[in-house]
Amino acid sequence: MNEFELIYEVIAPTSCRRDDVVLGIGDDGAVLAPPPGQSLVVVADTLVAGRHFPPGFPAADIGYRAAAVNLSDIAAMGATPLWATLALTLPASDTDWVRGFAAGLADALRPAATALVGGDTTRGPLTVTVQIIGSLPPGTALTRAGARPGDLVYVSGTPGDAAAGLAAWPPPSAPSATLAHLVARFTRPTPRLALGVALRSLASSCIDVSDGLLADAGHLAARSGCAIELDAARLPLSAALREACDAPTALRHALTGGDDYELCFTVPPSALPRLAALADVGMPPLACIGRVHAGAGVRVLDPHGRALEFARPGFDHFGGADEREHSGPMME
Amino acid sequence: MNEFELIYEVIAPTSCRRDDVVLGIGDDGAVLAPPPGQSLVVVADTLVAGRHFPPGFPAADIGYRAAAVNLSDIAAMGATPLWATLALTLPASDTDWVRGFAAGLADALRPAATALVGGDTTRGPLTVTVQIIGSLPPGTALTRAGARPGDLVYVSGTPGDAAAGLAAWPPPSAPSATLAHLVARFTRPTPRLALGVALRSLASSCIDVSDGLLADAGHLAARSGCAIELDAARLPLSAALREACDAPTALRHALTGGDDYELCFTVPPSALPRLAALADVGMPPLACIGRVHAGAGVRVLDPHGRALEFARPGFDHFGGADEREHSGPMME
Repeated sequence: MNEFELIYEVIAPTSCRRDDVVLGIGDDGAVLAPPPGQSLVVVADTLVAGRHFPPGFPAADIGYRAAAVNLSDIAAMGATPLWATLALTLPASDTDWVRGFAAGLADALRPAATALVGGDTTRGPLTVTVQIIGSLPPGTALTRAGARPGDLVYVSGTPGDAAAGLAAWPPPSAPSATLAHLVARFTRPTPRLALGVALRSLASSCIDVSDGLLADAGHLAARSGCAIELDAARLPLSAALREACDAPTALRHALTGGDDYELCFTVPPSALPRLAALADVGMPPLACIGRVHAGAGVRVLDPHGRALEFARPGFDHFGGADEREHSGPMME
Repeated sequence: MNEFELIYEVIAPTSCRRDDVVLGIGDDGAVLAPPPGQSLVVVADTLVAGRHFPPGFPAADIGYRAAAVNLSDIAAMGATPLWATLALTLPASDTDWVRGFAAGLADALRPAATALVGGDTTRGPLTVTVQIIGSLPPGTALTRAGARPGDLVYVSGTPGDAAAGLAAWPPPSAPSATLAHLVARFTRPTPRLALGVALRSLASSCIDVSDGLLADAGHLAARSGCAIELDAARLPLSAALREACDAPTALRHALTGGDDYELCFTVPPSALPRLAALADVGMPPLACIGRVHAGAGVRVLDPHGRALEFARPGFDHFGGADEREHSGPMME
């Protein structure tokens, strides 16, 4: 099976169909009919073996995550995904591996109605780059830059679960229900696409939690030119996380663990009634975890109002020589 | 310098500006305003160290080629490039390397008026994926599938030069003008963007020569459901190629060498007058090198009408165990 057959025969049939794909996989490029009058949103994220997923990670979960982390970026922009491309670098041709990978990729793309329209397959160290193009009405994109003093900081879902799941990798052959839940939060994160669209007219800034809540709130603060203060006691820790970890570890996972792919966003007080109404339309749980102030940086306060210190705010690929001292999603 | 500073501080400023980039590098995604009423064309290609470029290949040439091979795919579709994203996986943070890479990337993107709008930077084995989005009027895309019996087969420029240049890698410190020319054809291929646009209303099928003329003509034949016959004597070998190689080697480079990034296309006889007129508007030289017949596959005929045999039609990343016996662009 050669490069081209790999793409055509295994991956292509798993893609969902869209009427706006004029020409899909198999030519020098894909031809696409964009929705009239919309802006486009383009995202691209790479997963590197041994760095973004541990050795022995199932091919299907690699495929799922490669798509899901990009769909999460689309969600963080408030866009609706349309089309994906895949650049897959593999050490060897392995049809079973590619079948598993393609199935996992489809597991993420199909519920998002996102068509795989092209890409490239090369031989080399296992590296997966997915790019997704989405759309939204002009002027409605959520960015990192709009937080203002007085806004409140929210997060969706229960951050920290994915880090606890990864810390338990590889899971035992018969994991407890709690552990299986946490591991699935790492292997199969849910992109918050409907929430992202709903936040378009509500949130003043938004980011998806990939590097860790502390680091990603830091990106909001930096790009918005504000300070963010988080309350440790208000972090929505899941029952599973509290059962699996002691309290300091659970807090560390929730703040610095990364890989949650929840949305962290800021909301002006005037929009709070509309935000509350989202609970009635099937959105994930949303928790208010802090406030935006004038200033710079992110602080986490304990219940007594004292600032907590963390050695490492989150995931940084080029963080320097000290990074190997840290546990978490940085794996080598 | 961390991951984010690398992107912001070094690569971003080298990008050209476009008014249709609403939000560029630095958020979860880029926001883009597509040209109204146009179709989009999306291409993605990966370069892997030691496979698509030799050890010690200059960072600037890696950056240039990563963009140029994608612009070449855009050209082969007949589209005009608009925006690029970059997924760069690097073994270590190396500012000088990134500066060189960014400069080479800009050398390719800037003449094509293509803005770098986002991407991802990760640590790992050196791998570069560029994706480019272009546009064209609906219904005008060039594909591999439209060749019909009776059409003539053309190629732009002088195929084989890049393979001869790569075969001489690394070049001596003071190469002859001939050798320097051939090496530059590998390190700095010219995407045939204006030609691609001009061929929209002329060519029945089109592909860019990345894998080798024989292999890429084979893609046209396969996707069009036709046979292609090439005349060895009509291949437009450059003076430099003929000076640097004996005749059989020059022929082999031209037919199986790859990396030329010229356009190979088919034209119905009715369009030949308009094709000839392209010579007056500054297009690269075009040579008629064969014909389309009913049937399947590609044959190369010598001046006596005898079919020539080649052990290897072109570049195939997953070609099987025998691939190491072949020289050429496949490097490990």
